[in-house]
Amino acid sequence: MEATHIEHIGIAVKSLKDSIPYYENILGLKCYAIEEVKDQKVKTAFFKIGQTKIELLESTDPEGPIGKFIEKKGEGIHHLAFAVNNIESALKEVEEKGIRLIDKQARKGAEGLEIGFLHPKSTGGVLTEFCEDKNK
Amino acid sequence: MEATHIEHIGIAVKSLKDSIPYYENILGLKCYAIEEVKDQKVKTAFFKIGQTKIELLESTDPEGPIGKFIEKKGEGIHHLAFAVNNIESALKEVEEKGIRLIDKQARKGAEGLEIGFLHPKSTGGVLTEFCEDKNK
Repeated sequence: MEATHIEHIGIAVKSLKDSIPYYENILGLKCYAIEEVKDQKVKTAFFKIGQTKIELLESTDPEGPIGKFIEKKGEGIHHLAFAVNNIESALKEVEEKGIRLIDKQARKGAEGLEIGFLHPKSTGGVLTEFCEDKNK
Repeated sequence: MEATHIEHIGIAVKSLKDSIPYYENILGLKCYAIEEVKDQKVKTAFFKIGQTKIELLESTDPEGPIGKFIEKKGEGIHHLAFAVNNIESALKEVEEKGIRLIDKQARKGAEGLEIGFLHPKSTGGVLTEFCEDKNK
């Protein structure tokens, strides 16, 4: 498996509207897209910094994964996403090495990427995502 | 202020020895340095992926910041570090904009970088570090 760079860092926020100004006015980044990902029950806002994106995640449903995360832990970093060259083989390879997968098959995520999550119980407490951009 | 890329992601672990194999054998990264940062009461292990480093942090003292973090929250992502071009002016600028600083003056961090932390109460729950490499 080859992970080439940090594709994005997912950050749980209560409100995109309240959080975007910090990233724009304090860190000097620019929000270039807002997208709803219905099956994850989130609205996302994207910023680019070098090779990496920051993905703010606002829950659209208290029972969704981000709603539950914020209720339990408060706002903060939610997950870490690695860009991989071949997501199917990357998921298969780490599963064969004993990693527990949340997504046994890649599925469509924000920005049209193919994504799959690894379970934080297998990754030292870090909810970990693999992403492949098949449109490249 | 200009933040150019994600300099590193700091991840709290109970044991470098137990955690390094996940990053090497599963993610395919290579640990290129281990360093003790005495004033932070941590031992750190570094991996490079694209522009970004992953910095594993093992506490050398239960009363140190990483020891306390793990006791409260368990292992996981601890902080997010942005590379900036001028750390003194970056810290001054964000403080003038109302951000609470942990470090009002830059200080020496791992790998000889000049670093300064912003308080997570001002940054949406994300412990945020600025870093400048003055050796470049």
